[in-house]
Amino acid sequence: MRAYLETFTAKTPLHPAHLQEAVLSYLEAGGKYLRPCLALWCCRALGGSDEQALPAALAVEVFHTWTLVHDDIIDRDKTRRGRPTVHEEFRQKGESQLGLGEFAAHYGQSIAILAGDVLHGWAVCLLVEAAQQSGEGKEGEHLALELIREMEGEVLPRLIGGEVLDIQLSQRPLAEVTEEEILQLISGKTAALFAFSARAGAMLARGRYCPEDVQISALGNFGYHLGVAFQLQDDLLGLIGNEAELGKPVGSDIREGKRTLPLLYAWEKADEQQRGRMGEIVGHVNTTEKEIAEARGIIEDLGGIEYCRSMAKLHLCQAQEGLETIEEGAPKQLLGGLAQMMVERTR
Amino acid sequence: MRAYLETFTAKTPLHPAHLQEAVLSYLEAGGKYLRPCLALWCCRALGGSDEQALPAALAVEVFHTWTLVHDDIIDRDKTRRGRPTVHEEFRQKGESQLGLGEFAAHYGQSIAILAGDVLHGWAVCLLVEAAQQSGEGKEGEHLALELIREMEGEVLPRLIGGEVLDIQLSQRPLAEVTEEEILQLISGKTAALFAFSARAGAMLARGRYCPEDVQISALGNFGYHLGVAFQLQDDLLGLIGNEAELGKPVGSDIREGKRTLPLLYAWEKADEQQRGRMGEIVGHVNTTEKEIAEARGIIEDLGGIEYCRSMAKLHLCQAQEGLETIEEGAPKQLLGGLAQMMVERTR
Repeated sequence: MRAYLETFTAKTPLHPAHLQEAVLSYLEAGGKYLRPCLALWCCRALGGSDEQALPAALAVEVFHTWTLVHDDIIDRDKTRRGRPTVHEEFRQKGESQLGLGEFAAHYGQSIAILAGDVLHGWAVCLLVEAAQQSGEGKEGEHLALELIREMEGEVLPRLIGGEVLDIQLSQRPLAEVTEEEILQLISGKTAALFAFSARAGAMLARGRYCPEDVQISALGNFGYHLGVAFQLQDDLLGLIGNEAELGKPVGSDIREGKRTLPLLYAWEKADEQQRGRMGEIVGHVNTTEKEIAEARGIIEDLGGIEYCRSMAKLHLCQAQEGLETIEEGAPKQLLGGLAQMMVERTR
Repeated sequence: MRAYLETFTAKTPLHPAHLQEAVLSYLEAGGKYLRPCLALWCCRALGGSDEQALPAALAVEVFHTWTLVHDDIIDRDKTRRGRPTVHEEFRQKGESQLGLGEFAAHYGQSIAILAGDVLHGWAVCLLVEAAQQSGEGKEGEHLALELIREMEGEVLPRLIGGEVLDIQLSQRPLAEVTEEEILQLISGKTAALFAFSARAGAMLARGRYCPEDVQISALGNFGYHLGVAFQLQDDLLGLIGNEAELGKPVGSDIREGKRTLPLLYAWEKADEQQRGRMGEIVGHVNTTEKEIAEARGIIEDLGGIEYCRSMAKLHLCQAQEGLETIEEGAPKQLLGGLAQMMVERTR
């Protein structure tokens, strides 16, 4: 996979150099490659080969990557995958290499916006390549066009809608946030792309656009619930994970006031005094590590962690249902293992 | 054209409401529609119908629009097309509707990043639709895929590269900027999309992907030089235009230190004293209106305006050469008129 990406980059070097470096930053750091695995293994599950799904598998990874680049600007995160986020890296380079002084932060942000835009286009190009890999002729090209339309016209607006909801909810009093809204946020921000990754891989195995096919929609549901379970676990790890393993700061969700399921559940169970304390800690830039630990304690005591964990397991079960129509064999086992990993992972 | 856009939007309403409003903001304000005209008229010039080119014509306009949304964040512009820029509009709404206080500026910026991203995806979807309009069958779908690949894999990296160069040059001493770099910037930031608009319209008339076709590449060159002439005139208007007509502030290029051809030419001709004065005025946030007028005077006296105007005319002539292979008739006259307008326009 890495080799394929490198060939692709070598074909189209970017100028100026900072743009090239920014575009490659997260890809070089490497990720968990969950979405590409989902695409490849769903393709295998329906009898397809890895070659058929490879460009699409890379497309969903690159698509995910650009959303991270933009998301990190919005969340003002400084680290990702154990290294500086793109906007932070180029703030530093603007200062040290270009002597930009006060302008460096804006420079870093601008480079990150633009690098994300280039990656976005690149993801689309990889889906164009999927047409060539999925065999000769009309069916393959029609399929590629439909996948592009789904990714850009359906997944993207849902994903961005989830992102906007995320921003808006974090500014709204907890009393006015509902569990339904948090699940809507997760559905858009994370699960939509997981579902698409599974569907794309599966349809590439078929070699034609067939959204009504029972196994395609079953694998789509599998991907969807996998995505929800992944995000719930992510929210747990953001609260009680190990910073060194995760490669990003733990507790920053509390500092930023992110509306997550454990927080909302705990808030609903809390008494007046606990609510008051949570209100003082959650969503304040200057919250100390000690206060974050205190909020974590309150959430844990009130059962927020346990509730979120049980919801993640529920979605794991729903995901597993999606595998029922799939023939027994190695690909199905891989997909089952991937689902299990969602709720067991510590990084 | 407006009607087609409205149908398209109605099909996919966006949530939350702020996202929908942000996505439609610039489209509702309306623009000059130069790129769609180019696509439609190049299609007509090769005997095609408006229906064939309409989705692609909208695609290039929507593509242009998302780059404006992101560009305005980067340039920190507060007005566009006579109304607030997206990030400024949603800074205001964040303050007044959501009571965000200090967080409002970051909220406005985040909404603008995300709205640009949705528009980007929408532009790609419109090119998918081009396949359906360009007649049944394999040729049309192949053409649409190739157009998507060109727009996302070739035009986009060039455009963004031009944008990054724009940012970097504005921070570099004028003595270290060359005319070649400024033309490279214009070529990427503006001319690449103009060339694509012309080529896309022309190939849709042919109904198949035919980049080697003599008339296609002639119209591509026409679009390219039209784009350069347009940008040179834009830089002139940014210096000596009428603010009310333009709908955006005049002189802000000087305040922001944009490296434009008139400025560079004047700087090269300037004596020590003039250079010193220009250095004090150009690229300083607190530059006054009076100082901007002074810099404008220096640039004009040293022939910067005249030089830029003659370069724009040169590209106009080169554009007109691209029309030589095109049959006489109404579409050719429209394209000729469009070219003429590039260097005569005052808004």
